[in-house]
Amino acid sequence: MTTRSWWGWGTVEDAVTPEERRVLTERVRAVLPDADLTFHAPPDPASLDLPAPRFPVPGGICSADPVDRLSHARGQAYRDVARNLAGDVGTLPDAVARPRTEQDVVDVLDWCSSNDVAVIPFGGGTSVVGGVEPRDAERVVTLDLGALDRVLEVDPTSRAARIQAGVPGPSLEAQLEQHGLTLRHFPQSFEFSTLGGWLATRASGHYATLHTHIDDLTESLRVVTPRGVCESRRLPGSGAGPSPDRLFLGSEGALGVITEAWMRLQDPPVHRAGASVRFASWERAVEATRLIAQSGLHPANCRLLDPAEALLNAGSPRSVLVLAFESADHPVDAKLARALELCGDGEVVEGAARRWRKSFLRMPYQRDAMAQHAMITETFETACTWDRFPGLHASVVAEATEVLREVCGAGIVTCRFTHVYPDGPAPYYGVYAPGRWGSLTAQWDEIKAAVSEVLLGAGGTITHHHAVGRDHMPWYTRQRPDVFGAALSGAKAALDPAGVLNPGVLTTRAT
Amino acid sequence: MTTRSWWGWGTVEDAVTPEERRVLTERVRAVLPDADLTFHAPPDPASLDLPAPRFPVPGGICSADPVDRLSHARGQAYRDVARNLAGDVGTLPDAVARPRTEQDVVDVLDWCSSNDVAVIPFGGGTSVVGGVEPRDAERVVTLDLGALDRVLEVDPTSRAARIQAGVPGPSLEAQLEQHGLTLRHFPQSFEFSTLGGWLATRASGHYATLHTHIDDLTESLRVVTPRGVCESRRLPGSGAGPSPDRLFLGSEGALGVITEAWMRLQDPPVHRAGASVRFASWERAVEATRLIAQSGLHPANCRLLDPAEALLNAGSPRSVLVLAFESADHPVDAKLARALELCGDGEVVEGAARRWRKSFLRMPYQRDAMAQHAMITETFETACTWDRFPGLHASVVAEATEVLREVCGAGIVTCRFTHVYPDGPAPYYGVYAPGRWGSLTAQWDEIKAAVSEVLLGAGGTITHHHAVGRDHMPWYTRQRPDVFGAALSGAKAALDPAGVLNPGVLTTRAT
Repeated sequence: MTTRSWWGWGTVEDAVTPEERRVLTERVRAVLPDADLTFHAPPDPASLDLPAPRFPVPGGICSADPVDRLSHARGQAYRDVARNLAGDVGTLPDAVARPRTEQDVVDVLDWCSSNDVAVIPFGGGTSVVGGVEPRDAERVVTLDLGALDRVLEVDPTSRAARIQAGVPGPSLEAQLEQHGLTLRHFPQSFEFSTLGGWLATRASGHYATLHTHIDDLTESLRVVTPRGVCESRRLPGSGAGPSPDRLFLGSEGALGVITEAWMRLQDPPVHRAGASVRFASWERAVEATRLIAQSGLHPANCRLLDPAEALLNAGSPRSVLVLAFESADHPVDAKLARALELCGDGEVVEGAARRWRKSFLRMPYQRDAMAQHAMITETFETACTWDRFPGLHASVVAEATEVLREVCGAGIVTCRFTHVYPDGPAPYYGVYAPGRWGSLTAQWDEIKAAVSEVLLGAGGTITHHHAVGRDHMPWYTRQRPDVFGAALSGAKAALDPAGVLNPGVLTTRAT
Repeated sequence: MTTRSWWGWGTVEDAVTPEERRVLTERVRAVLPDADLTFHAPPDPASLDLPAPRFPVPGGICSADPVDRLSHARGQAYRDVARNLAGDVGTLPDAVARPRTEQDVVDVLDWCSSNDVAVIPFGGGTSVVGGVEPRDAERVVTLDLGALDRVLEVDPTSRAARIQAGVPGPSLEAQLEQHGLTLRHFPQSFEFSTLGGWLATRASGHYATLHTHIDDLTESLRVVTPRGVCESRRLPGSGAGPSPDRLFLGSEGALGVITEAWMRLQDPPVHRAGASVRFASWERAVEATRLIAQSGLHPANCRLLDPAEALLNAGSPRSVLVLAFESADHPVDAKLARALELCGDGEVVEGAARRWRKSFLRMPYQRDAMAQHAMITETFETACTWDRFPGLHASVVAEATEVLREVCGAGIVTCRFTHVYPDGPAPYYGVYAPGRWGSLTAQWDEIKAAVSEVLLGAGGTITHHHAVGRDHMPWYTRQRPDVFGAALSGAKAALDPAGVLNPGVLTTRAT
C-alpha cells in the first residue's frame, strides 16, 4: 500500500531520496550558481484553514471531508504544486462524490442540474492545465470515478474490450494481461491517470508515430449527459455523419461524463529493435527525424532531444534521436536499419535511450522536489507543420530565454519532440529557472503567458496533449475558429442546459 | 472533350460498347434464364416536362436552364438512374449557382438564408444516397463548386497542399504531380467526384487498411457557414478540445460549405509487391484476412472477394484475397511474404488482381447498361467488428436472397471486403436481380429497406463510405445516439439558424 502525496506528484513512498535531492541541487548549482536553493517543507494539511462546504452535502456517495476535498482541489501542474507548497489552497470542491454505478453518475448530474451545482469529473487528478480545479464556480461537486475501474468485457477476436472510465493505467494493463492483450497507451502520467481522463483530454501515449492519440484507439464511447446517456456503436470504421465519438473525445467533462469505452487492443510486442543516434547539429537531427516521420516506417519511439535536453537527461551534450520499433507479428530489424540510413551521418550511440527512460519516469518527482528549493521546472508543448517549425522554435527559444532572464534572472530552455507526424513535429519544451519563494506561481504564469503568445503567433497549437482546462482557455478561444466555438456552445446547450458540466472549460458558462 | 451522361454514370463516350452489352446480357441470361432483358432507351431530355423555377432566379452566377437543373437534380445511385431512364425527373433545383470565388459562396448563403431558400452543395454529383437531391425542399439553389478547382499552395517540406473543394480527382492529381506529390485517394467515383465531396461524406479511398478514410488525410478545413467562415489551423496533431475538423468531416453540407482544405500528401510509391490468394473456404479466407488486418503490415490493398464476387469479376469460383503493398521509401517484399504466411494453406493465383481491377472501373457503366434491360444491379456496404461479422454476414445473405426471391423471383448476392481494420471488416454487398420495367425503383427500395434492417440489427453501420444523404436517414437516425443527434441539432442551429443548408440530410429541418 502506498499513499498519494497531497501536495505533489505520485506517492509519498516514491518521492526523491535525500541522495537524489543532493545530486539534483548540486547539478542545478553547477548551471545556475546564483540560485537560492533553500529547502521549504510542505505545510501540514491539518494546519491549513480549509473552507467549509457552501451547501449541505448529502450523505451516501458524497464526502465533505476537508482533506478529501483538498486532495481533489487541483491537478499536478507546477503551479498547483507551488500553490500547495505555499499553503495557498484556493477554492475546494464542496463535496467529493464517488459513484459506484453508472446510475450514481446519472443521479449526481440530475441533482446538480436541479440545484445549480457544478460537476467536475475527476479521474487520476493529473491535469496540468487546471482541468479539475473548481476555480470560478460557486458550488461544486467533484465526481471521482475511481470506483468504476473494471474491464467489463473482452472480445479477443476483434481485440477490443469494454472498460470502465475510472481505471488507472497499471490496473487496466493488469486486467488486460489476463487475456493476453494490451492497450499500450503509456502517457507520462500512466501510473495515476485513468482511461476516462485520457479520452476526455485526447491524451497521447508512448507511440511517437501513427496512433499517438487515444482517439485512434477508441472503438465506441458511453457518456452520461444531463440530456441522457449517449452510447455509440462498436464500429471499426463508419461514414455515417460526423463521428459521435470525436465530439466527446477532448470534451474535458464539458459535454458529459465518460463512463465506459470499447477500446482497440493489441497483442503484446515480441519483436523489438532500437538505437540512439547523435547528430552534429540540431538542424540535421530535425531533418533526419522528418525523413523518418515521412517514410512510412512508423517507429514506436522517435524522440528527438535537443543538446540541452540530451545533456540534462541522457548524458550527452548533442542532439540525440531515440528510435525504437516493435511488433507482435514480424521482425523489425530491417525497419531500424532503414531508419538509420535516413539518419545520414548521424552516429549510433550506446546507453542514451536507457538513461532517457530512467529520467523520464523520475521527472515529475524531481520537478516537485526542486520546487521545494524554489526552482521553476515546468514544460509546455505544441505541434506545428514542418515548414513552420524552424521559425516557431527560434521564436520560442528566444522568447523563453528572454522572459526567464526578465522574470528569474536566468534559466535554461530545452526541447524534445515527443511525437512526430508526416506533416510536422510535436515539440515539447522544458524550462528550468531559479524562482523567488512566495512568487513562484506568479513568475510561472508570466513565463507561460509569454511563450503561449509565441506558440499561437507562430502557427502552433496551445496544446498537443495536455488539454485546455482552465489555464489554456485564453489562448484556446483565440486558436479555435469562432464558428466552431459557436457550434460547440450550441451542442453544450443541448446536452447540458443548466450549464453545470465543468464550467469554465472549453465553453464559457451560459448566462 | 467528353460529354457527361444526363441519365447515368460517367461520359457518353465511355458507355458500354454494343459488344460489351452483348457479353453482359449473355452472362446474365446464363445465370438468370427467365429474366426479361428487353432493351429500353433513355428518354430524350427535350421531351421531358421539366418544371419551371419556383422563384425568380437572379442572374450572374445562377442558371435557370432546364437541362442544367435536370443534370443537378440527383446523384448516381441505381434508383437515380432507374428513375431517369423511366423519365421520372422528380423535383429539380430552381437554380444552379456556380460560384467563382469564396465570396460568391458567402453571398449565396446570405441570400438563401434571407429568402428561405435551401442550398444543396454539389461537387461531382456522384452521391449514391440522395445527398444532392432536392427531394422535399420547396425552394432550392444547388451550389455547384466546379469552378473552385485549383491547388492554391503546396508545402513540399510538410508534404501538404491547400486545395479548393471543387476539384475532381484527375485534375487534383495532375496538379499535384507537378510538385512530385500525390494525395492517393482513389474512391471508385474518382474520375468525377471532388475533394469537397470526399470531405463532406467521409469518403474512403483505395487504401484497404490504415488511412482509409479521407478524415486522416485532412490537415485543416475552410468552411463557409451562414454564421461566418470557419478556418481551422494547419496542425499535424492537437489536443485542444474536440477536433473542429471532425465536426465538418461527414457533415454532408448540413453545417456549411467546405471551400478549401489543407490535405496531407505523399511521395508517389516506387516499391510495390502484390499477390492474389485463393482459399478452400470463405471462413478460412475471412480468418486469414483478419490476421493480416491485425498484423500491423498495413497492406495498401487487402480486398477479399467471396466466391460469387470472384466468379463474376475475377474469373474464379472461390474466395480470393487481393493483396498489395506499396512504399515510396523501402522495399515491401518482406511484408508480402509475411502476409502470405498468414494466409496459411491459401494458394497464390495469377491474374485475379488484374481482372478485378479492370472490372472495378467498368462496374458503374455496366450497372447502367444493365438497368436499360431492367436488371437491378446495386450495392450496399457496412462495417462491423470481427466477432459480429459471421452472424451479420449470414443474416444479410439470407435476408437479401429471400427478399430478391420475393421481389424479383430470383437474384444473386455477392460480398467483398473493401477495407479491413484491426477490429473489423467493411463488407460490401452486391445484388443482381431481374427487375420489372416500370417498377425498378420500388423494387430496389423494398430490397434496400430489408437489408438495411438486417445491417442495423446485426450491429453494423448503415454506411461505411457512401454517406447518409436522404436515402439512409431512417436508419441513420436510429443508429446514431439520440444525445448526439441533439448535439448535432444544437450545433446546426448555431451555424445555420435559418435551416437552409441541405435540409433533410443528417438533421431534420427545424420548424
